[in-house]
Amino acid sequence: MATLRKQYVVSRPVFSEDSFAENYEKINRIHKTTKDHIRQYFSDSKRVKKAALSLLPVIEWMRSYRLKQWLMGDVVSGVSTGLVAIMQGLAFSLLASLPASYGLYTAFFPVLAYFLLGTSRHISVGSFPVLSLMVGAVVTRLVPEDGPPAMIPAFTNLTQDQQRVLVASSITFLMGIIQLAMGVFQVGFVVMYLSDTLVSGFTTAAAVHILVSQLKFVLGLTVPGISGPLAIIYTLEKLFVQIHSTNICDLVMSVVIMVVVFIVKELNDRYRAKLPVPIPIEVIMTIIACGISYGFNFTERFKVEVVGEMVSGYEAPVAPNMDIIRDGGVEAFPMAIVGFTVAFSVAKVYSIKHDYAIDGNQELIAFGVSNMFGATFRSFAASTSLSRTAVQESSGGRTQIAGLISALMAMIVTIALGFLLEPLPRSVLGALVIVNLKGMLMQFTEVPYLWRRDRIECVVWVGTCTAAIFLGLDLGLAVGLGVELLTVVFRAQFPRCSVLANIRGTDLYRDRKDYLHIYEPPGVKIFRIPSPIFFANVEFFRNKLIEAVGFNPLRVLKKRNKALRKIKKMLQQNNYHITETLSSSPEEDHEDQPNLEEPDSPCHMKDLPFKVDWRSEMASDLGVPRVNLQSLLLDFSAVSFLDISALKGLKAIIKEFLRVDVEVYIVSCDAHVLETFHRFAFFDDEIQTFMFYPTLHDAMVQVTETNQSSNYKPMLKATRL
Amino acid sequence: MATLRKQYVVSRPVFSEDSFAENYEKINRIHKTTKDHIRQYFSDSKRVKKAALSLLPVIEWMRSYRLKQWLMGDVVSGVSTGLVAIMQGLAFSLLASLPASYGLYTAFFPVLAYFLLGTSRHISVGSFPVLSLMVGAVVTRLVPEDGPPAMIPAFTNLTQDQQRVLVASSITFLMGIIQLAMGVFQVGFVVMYLSDTLVSGFTTAAAVHILVSQLKFVLGLTVPGISGPLAIIYTLEKLFVQIHSTNICDLVMSVVIMVVVFIVKELNDRYRAKLPVPIPIEVIMTIIACGISYGFNFTERFKVEVVGEMVSGYEAPVAPNMDIIRDGGVEAFPMAIVGFTVAFSVAKVYSIKHDYAIDGNQELIAFGVSNMFGATFRSFAASTSLSRTAVQESSGGRTQIAGLISALMAMIVTIALGFLLEPLPRSVLGALVIVNLKGMLMQFTEVPYLWRRDRIECVVWVGTCTAAIFLGLDLGLAVGLGVELLTVVFRAQFPRCSVLANIRGTDLYRDRKDYLHIYEPPGVKIFRIPSPIFFANVEFFRNKLIEAVGFNPLRVLKKRNKALRKIKKMLQQNNYHITETLSSSPEEDHEDQPNLEEPDSPCHMKDLPFKVDWRSEMASDLGVPRVNLQSLLLDFSAVSFLDISALKGLKAIIKEFLRVDVEVYIVSCDAHVLETFHRFAFFDDEIQTFMFYPTLHDAMVQVTETNQSSNYKPMLKATRL
Repeated sequence: MATLRKQYVVSRPVFSEDSFAENYEKINRIHKTTKDHIRQYFSDSKRVKKAALSLLPVIEWMRSYRLKQWLMGDVVSGVSTGLVAIMQGLAFSLLASLPASYGLYTAFFPVLAYFLLGTSRHISVGSFPVLSLMVGAVVTRLVPEDGPPAMIPAFTNLTQDQQRVLVASSITFLMGIIQLAMGVFQVGFVVMYLSDTLVSGFTTAAAVHILVSQLKFVLGLTVPGISGPLAIIYTLEKLFVQIHSTNICDLVMSVVIMVVVFIVKELNDRYRAKLPVPIPIEVIMTIIACGISYGFNFTERFKVEVVGEMVSGYEAPVAPNMDIIRDGGVEAFPMAIVGFTVAFSVAKVYSIKHDYAIDGNQELIAFGVSNMFGATFRSFAASTSLSRTAVQESSGGRTQIAGLISALMAMIVTIALGFLLEPLPRSVLGALVIVNLKGMLMQFTEVPYLWRRDRIECVVWVGTCTAAIFLGLDLGLAVGLGVELLTVVFRAQFPRCSVLANIRGTDLYRDRKDYLHIYEPPGVKIFRIPSPIFFANVEFFRNKLIEAVGFNPLRVLKKRNKALRKIKKMLQQNNYHITETLSSSPEEDHEDQPNLEEPDSPCHMKDLPFKVDWRSEMASDLGVPRVNLQSLLLDFSAVSFLDISALKGLKAIIKEFLRVDVEVYIVSCDAHVLETFHRFAFFDDEIQTFMFYPTLHDAMVQVTETNQSSNYKPMLKATRL
Repeated sequence: MATLRKQYVVSRPVFSEDSFAENYEKINRIHKTTKDHIRQYFSDSKRVKKAALSLLPVIEWMRSYRLKQWLMGDVVSGVSTGLVAIMQGLAFSLLASLPASYGLYTAFFPVLAYFLLGTSRHISVGSFPVLSLMVGAVVTRLVPEDGPPAMIPAFTNLTQDQQRVLVASSITFLMGIIQLAMGVFQVGFVVMYLSDTLVSGFTTAAAVHILVSQLKFVLGLTVPGISGPLAIIYTLEKLFVQIHSTNICDLVMSVVIMVVVFIVKELNDRYRAKLPVPIPIEVIMTIIACGISYGFNFTERFKVEVVGEMVSGYEAPVAPNMDIIRDGGVEAFPMAIVGFTVAFSVAKVYSIKHDYAIDGNQELIAFGVSNMFGATFRSFAASTSLSRTAVQESSGGRTQIAGLISALMAMIVTIALGFLLEPLPRSVLGALVIVNLKGMLMQFTEVPYLWRRDRIECVVWVGTCTAAIFLGLDLGLAVGLGVELLTVVFRAQFPRCSVLANIRGTDLYRDRKDYLHIYEPPGVKIFRIPSPIFFANVEFFRNKLIEAVGFNPLRVLKKRNKALRKIKKMLQQNNYHITETLSSSPEEDHEDQPNLEEPDSPCHMKDLPFKVDWRSEMASDLGVPRVNLQSLLLDFSAVSFLDISALKGLKAIIKEFLRVDVEVYIVSCDAHVLETFHRFAFFDDEIQTFMFYPTLHDAMVQVTETNQSSNYKPMLKATRL
């Protein structure tokens, strides 16, 4: 602490903002307008070329591809990722309520487009469980399991599965358009609004939905897909009603697989350092299950539902259906946002780790095109999956070449090996989906942590999660966003205001309640406004300020004006000559148009033959409260912005104080906020720029000297003029 | 300016927050918990009594009623208000798509309840056009003009009008419940979120809706009530399609009435001072129109639609229908909020003018009970109308006695004089509604004003207005609220960051771009964060900070670690003894779990036989960028709050700077924000409390002296230890 024994010595003139501006001339900076920015942007030919290049990032990184060093890793990584992608494709297509083969499409088409357009070198593009579930919600709403499908002309002559694929690809196409548009209009920053807390609450809710949606496969029951608010409750109800007809074979197989996969995954985690590659337990279990199911003919013997016939090869492209787009349009928005947010946050993690740049807007374009391209070939919504990307990166993938190879693997299965997967029981896929939810469900443990640290943040998490569970993912996301935006307003809305006082012998001012030896000059109040002022808290500050000074200036002003009228009347009765009559006094005129912004008019004493000293004893005899405050200092250092409501409210309260003869000073105002004052024509003949001071101490030095020299004496001053 | 030539002289020790806390002991204030507050609140028996009394404000003001002075005014005012209330009741019932007599009910029942429970003495409770229109939207949705009504069991055996009244009263009852609940749970503060700008945009849109809805009466056409998004477009379309069958009698009568009423109202305004009472032109025109319509038998001769049979007397109470409540529940929310907001803002204006207190939560209770009570007697949603309240106050009303008398007038018409109004053409009522929209429609002129002053505010106005016009009032209000909340976030999200420098010879620091003679010590950067930090802008600040200092500390750190590994390898090849091997170095371990919050690990040089000076020439030979920054001062004076994302991001970036040997200081931190740092366990072995300084100048004095004494020389320091 010895180093801190240095002296802080300052000797300079006292400055107000005005005198400071006089002494130190400000450079007249010309701020560029938006138009200038745009013109400059396009006039730079290099930049245009660069922008054009940045639309195809593949050119950039392929040029610098180190064939010898990277290719091996990419191939190994591509093969491992491909296995996972095939597995997940099959499983997540169940979430989307689609035949399993379309999951393989999703592992193929979007990857091709992303290869050309994406800026992340490590993410594995393809199906993402939450997104698949959101697709599934639209699919089952428009084409329910039982009951007729929605009235869409294009549905005639299609099988139920074909209808569903049409719905999924149309909605995916729309999602792609939305993402592309967001990318083109450079609004990728909207993902910033999805804070970690919100995403955590949302994905946890999604995990719950996924869990519930897979129960029917695990139990071997048939439950129609239900969507809309409270769907989860109805689904659970339908499950429990028929719990007695559970398919024991399905259940046993699922439980065995879940337990084995869970244990092996834990072992993989624990001995990560020692294992050359993690054991691909999911692939192994799938192969075993396929074999057993085929060997013992599970379909016939135990009525186990299997994946069934796979579409071999690719189908002709399909145009998105406008009726479906119109009907499911609202649901495509949250899908576009969720899909991009997840992919971008995963991409960011790896871009930081491997130190390369990714571009949010280019990513939006890449995912937009990927989804539109994929949708034309009947694949459904693509983003990335955390686990698959982790495999791709940890097994040595360096570039999207790995992604390309994984896509080729999916293609091989689609074209040639699909028949091998036909005997795979659906319950196995369901079990694999469920066992992979562990990480997402474990996010529940964040709640007690958040509760201890920050209640508001906890409310966001719990609010988003419960809303997303009970109202559905799309509505839940909207509610979560609303709650989150409200928290920002809320934090700024009810801050802890304080009255400051001087730490003796220094130029520092602190909350007077916090320190013992603190000096508050008589007749001076320093009120600190510790947050921006806007429509929702301007009333709050007004009340706090009135509480702090101990009187309501408007009320005092009204009382004074009333007393003045009384005095004038008395004088009139005593035949004094008064120029103005009562009826036409300016106060009366005002009262016809009550206006919150304009306080009562100031006391007019010009037509009185003497001056009334409102601080005298006589004042209280007239029923006017005495005001001991002479100067009010408002500490604006934390006021980072003001809106119109704030300026109106501020103007009103400052005028009220000025009219009861309290000097008001605004201190430590940010340069930008000061500009706001000027722009809004805040100043008039009552409120002027000399009120502004750069520091509290400047204002205080000024104020205390003025007060001393003003010869303020508590005596009746009613001398005739 | 002579007064400002005073000197500002300060001489004190340099303080960090730590040394300040040592020298000036802080009082350990125990903040009351919510529980304490509640306990204290209820243990105070006086307060309980007071609270009980405040539930029936009528007791309070009736006690102090000055019979002689006030009664006359109240009676006169009650009669004038009563006439207006009857007129408006008839007219606004058209907006609600209900028979005219129910508008008279609304002028009676809610007033009785408000008389007992309300805290405002001047507002005239009853129908409010915007609210009536919102009721009408529900009514026509559930019971459309043509086509079958909604499938509600209670509708069987009811006429269309009876069905509509049932819908209106059920939805009003629900609205009352919502208001009552809000009052009981003391959440009246939510009206603060409806800023003046939002309310102005919303009511303007409402005026447009009202105008369009009245056109059919003015033109004498039949248009089914349409609700939902774009309803206004469809309504206009239906109008123009049949414009050729306009009833000329209706049109002429309406236009004449509109012109006459408009002119007389302007005259009333202009000669307000000279007229004893404003000319009650609306009442006069209504009587004339009634007479002419009756005398010339307009109904038969010109097929003019008239008010028709009035229900004489009152009907039996009706229970709200649960099916309707369930179906229209979402619409009752905006109604409850709009109704209360308007009434409260009007009440506030008059409470300030006449200097008495009103209580937001008690008002909510009053309106809640009024609406529930009214709904049971088949009246529809009540709030207040600005024009009616202006009449009540300006004609001398002092208390709600005036309201009571106006209610009695409505009762008299209902019971005895209703038949006189039966020949009144509906077009006359429509014309009167339209001519009264002038004030609300004139709010359009606010747009250019807002555009010049504050674009963001303008966006709120235009956004709310267009959304409310095209999506309907309820959805429009939601959109407007969303936009408004977003603006608060937006204002705090992209503030103008700046690099500060010292004004020579003072302790003041300003934006270095703004002043010519400004001093920035070498190796020191002062970065000002001019707004709170939260999830949506923590990345923005990170980027701005990196831009300001000119290098990315994480990248430098990675480069340094890489260079270090290179050096170690070289040393190993030269057979130096290195204790740790490369493979198990802590950096490598870290890379398996990429984590955004935790930057790259610090450079480990313990196992090196010499110290590497990263600021030397050699560093750049190794491909490590040179860093000239020694100290980074973060001006936190405008940071009014921090959330968890902000703390995580801040911790990461500070660590990155510390690990490339840049000292970081946080300056002018609010006491409350400092508490936040402690609560979140922000501090560890790298980030410690000695970083905090009370003022920029304290930190600067400290920093420059340290830098001078640190003997910083730009030479290679690779001496063996």
